[in-house]
Amino acid sequence: MQDNGKPKIELGLEGVYFTESGICKVDGVNGRLYYYGYSIETLAENSNFEEVCYLLLNGRLPNAAELSGFRNSLAQERPLPDEVAGLIEDSPKDAHPMDVLRSAVSVMALYDPDANDNSDAANMRKSIRLVSRLASAVGAIGGCRNGIGYVKPDSSMGAAGNFFYMLTGKKPDAEAVKVLDLMLLLHAEHSSNASTFSGIVTAATLSDLYSAVTSAIGTLKGPLHGGADQAALEMMHAIGRPENTEVYINDALAGKKKIMGFGHRVYKTYDPRARIIKNRLEILQGSANEEVRNLTSIALAAEKLMIDKLGSSHGIWPNVDFFSGPVYTDLGIPDYLFTPLFAASRIPGWCAHVMQYWKSNRLVRPLEYYNGELDTQYVPISQR
Amino acid sequence: MQDNGKPKIELGLEGVYFTESGICKVDGVNGRLYYYGYSIETLAENSNFEEVCYLLLNGRLPNAAELSGFRNSLAQERPLPDEVAGLIEDSPKDAHPMDVLRSAVSVMALYDPDANDNSDAANMRKSIRLVSRLASAVGAIGGCRNGIGYVKPDSSMGAAGNFFYMLTGKKPDAEAVKVLDLMLLLHAEHSSNASTFSGIVTAATLSDLYSAVTSAIGTLKGPLHGGADQAALEMMHAIGRPENTEVYINDALAGKKKIMGFGHRVYKTYDPRARIIKNRLEILQGSANEEVRNLTSIALAAEKLMIDKLGSSHGIWPNVDFFSGPVYTDLGIPDYLFTPLFAASRIPGWCAHVMQYWKSNRLVRPLEYYNGELDTQYVPISQR
Repeated sequence: MQDNGKPKIELGLEGVYFTESGICKVDGVNGRLYYYGYSIETLAENSNFEEVCYLLLNGRLPNAAELSGFRNSLAQERPLPDEVAGLIEDSPKDAHPMDVLRSAVSVMALYDPDANDNSDAANMRKSIRLVSRLASAVGAIGGCRNGIGYVKPDSSMGAAGNFFYMLTGKKPDAEAVKVLDLMLLLHAEHSSNASTFSGIVTAATLSDLYSAVTSAIGTLKGPLHGGADQAALEMMHAIGRPENTEVYINDALAGKKKIMGFGHRVYKTYDPRARIIKNRLEILQGSANEEVRNLTSIALAAEKLMIDKLGSSHGIWPNVDFFSGPVYTDLGIPDYLFTPLFAASRIPGWCAHVMQYWKSNRLVRPLEYYNGELDTQYVPISQR
Repeated sequence: MQDNGKPKIELGLEGVYFTESGICKVDGVNGRLYYYGYSIETLAENSNFEEVCYLLLNGRLPNAAELSGFRNSLAQERPLPDEVAGLIEDSPKDAHPMDVLRSAVSVMALYDPDANDNSDAANMRKSIRLVSRLASAVGAIGGCRNGIGYVKPDSSMGAAGNFFYMLTGKKPDAEAVKVLDLMLLLHAEHSSNASTFSGIVTAATLSDLYSAVTSAIGTLKGPLHGGADQAALEMMHAIGRPENTEVYINDALAGKKKIMGFGHRVYKTYDPRARIIKNRLEILQGSANEEVRNLTSIALAAEKLMIDKLGSSHGIWPNVDFFSGPVYTDLGIPDYLFTPLFAASRIPGWCAHVMQYWKSNRLVRPLEYYNGELDTQYVPISQR
C-alpha cells in the first residue's frame, strides 16, 4: 500500500516475477541469452532449429537416434489438414497474414483428435504437430499470395527448407536454408515475452494447447512485439539511401517517434541475437544484390547513430528485430511474412512454456485498482 | 528480494495490481459487484443486457434515443458472414464448441474491413459487431448440432431471443428470453478475470480487437474459468438424487476433489451473482419439470452442506457458476452451450477493457525467475 491507501500498480507487470523456469535465461544486463543453459552463441554455431526444438520440448539435447526420430515425427506432420489448407487458400488476399495464421491454428484444433486431450503424451504430440505445421502454414500463406497457390509440403525437408519450397514451388538453395534455419533458431525462445505469457494465461485456466498458441499468435501480431522487424524494414525503405539516414533519425528522435528495432523491456544492452544477425549482414554487404546492400548500409548507419545517441546514455540498443529485415529480403522473403515466420520460430518456446507451467499450474488473475464511484443511483430511462 | 537473493514470485499474480479502471468493482470482502458504479442488484432489477452493453462500452447509461440506436446497430450486425456460418456448419460435430467459437471469431476478422483499423471509431463498430454476432454464433453452434442447421438470425430480436430462435428455429417464449437476458447481464463483466486479462495481454502489443477476443475465448474455455458451470451441473447429474448429496460431498471433500462452482480468487464470501441466480432457482422449485426440480433440490442441498463445512471457516462460498446449470437446463439449453453462452455474455466486458487499456497502453511482460544452469557445455551429437 502507498501512503494514500492506493496499492502499488505494477504497470505492464514490469519487473514482476510470476513463475520460475529453467527454459530460458535472458540476461538483460550482460546481453546474454540461454536456452536450457546453452548460450545462444553456442547454439547458433553448433546446433540447428530442429535440435533446438527438441531441446526446448524435452529439456536436453537429443542423441543421434532421438534427433532422427524427432525429425521423422516432424516430417510426418508437415501436411496441413485439408480444411486448414482450404482456409488459407480461400482467405481474402488483403486479410492480415497473422489473422490468417491465427485462424489456421485455431481451425487445426477442430481436426485434431488430440485437441482436447491434456495428457503429457498428447501435449507432446500436439507440440510436434504445431512446430511442424506452423512452418507449413506460413509457407502456404506466402504461396497462396504470390500466385503459386497451395504447394503440398515436402516431408523430406526441414522447417526452413519446406517453407521455401511451399513459398516458391522450387527446391531451395542450401545456403538460404542454412540462413533461415539460423533465424528460426535465434527466435525459438525468449522467456516470458508477451506472446509466451499470453499463451500461459490462456493455458492456466486448464484450457488447451491450441487455445494457448492461438492466443500467442494474436499477441505476437502487434507492432510492439512480432511486428517490429517489418516496421524496422519499412523505416529503412522510408530512409531510402544511406546518406539520408542521419537526417531521418534526427527528425524522428526530435519528433519523439519510436524507432522500431531499438530498445527492449529486458535488454538494457546489445541484444545478443542482434549481434549474430548483424554478423550475417556484414557478410551480405559483400555478396548481396544492390537493394539488399543498400538496406544493409542504411541499417548499419542507423545502428551506429542510434548507439551514439541512446546506447550507453539511455540503455536503448538494437534488438533482434532491427537487422532481420535485410536478411529476410536477401532470402527473397516478402515483408508480410516476417511476423508469421516469427510465429513459426517461436512455437517450440510457446509449447515448452505451456507444458512446463501446467506442471505446477496456477490461474493467472491479477487485479485492477478500481478508480470509479460506487452505488450510483439508477435513473429510469424516461428521465435521462 | 528475499534473503536468499531470489525475488518474490507472485504465483498466478494473485493480489498484484497491473492497472486501474472504473469499469468494474469486485468487492470480494463484502460480496458486492458493480458495473460502472451501479450495483449488480440494481442492474438485475432495472436494466437489461443491451442497456448494460451500452453502459460497459460507453461508460454511462443511454437515454431512450441512444438505446434505440444501439439496439438498431446490434440488430443490423446479427447475421454472420457466410464464411463464418459455413465454418460452423462444416465443423465436426464432436469438436469442442469453444474451439468452434474461437475459430468463428478468428475467421470473422478475415471478412471485416475494420479488422485492422485500430481507431476508436472502428473499435466501437467492431465491439458492437462482436457483441451482436457472438450470440448468433453460439445459437448457430447449437442449431447445427441439434439437427436444425443454420437458422438465419432474426434481427428483430435481442441477443437472448435471437439465440433461442437460432437454437430452436421457433419464436421463443417471452419469460425464457427474460431469464436468459438476466443471465447474460449477470455475466457481462467481472473486472480483470483470466479471460479479460488475456485479452488485455494480447491487445497490449497493439494487436487488434479480434485477436484479443480470440484469446479471451480460448482462456474462458478452461474448467478453472468458464467451464465451471458445466462441471457443476455434471456433478449434480452424478449425485443423481437429493438424498445422495451429503455422501457425495463428504466423499469428494475427503478425496480432496475440487467441487466446481465453489470458491473464487476474489470473492471470499457469497458471490452476489450466485444469490440472484439462487433466487431464480427457488422460483423454479415450484414451477419447473421434474428433472429441473430434482437438480434444483440437489443444488440447494449441496450449497447448504458446503457453506456449513467451508463457508465462514475457509472463505469458500458458492460462485456464479454453481446455480447456473439448473437454470439453463430449465431454459432447454444443452450443457455444451454453457461456456459459449458465457462468452456471448462477457463480450461487452472484454471489449470495454481492451478499449480502455489502449488509452494508456503498456506492454504486459512480467518476468520468470530463472532456476536453471548457465553456460552448459555443448557436447557434439556423436558423443551424446
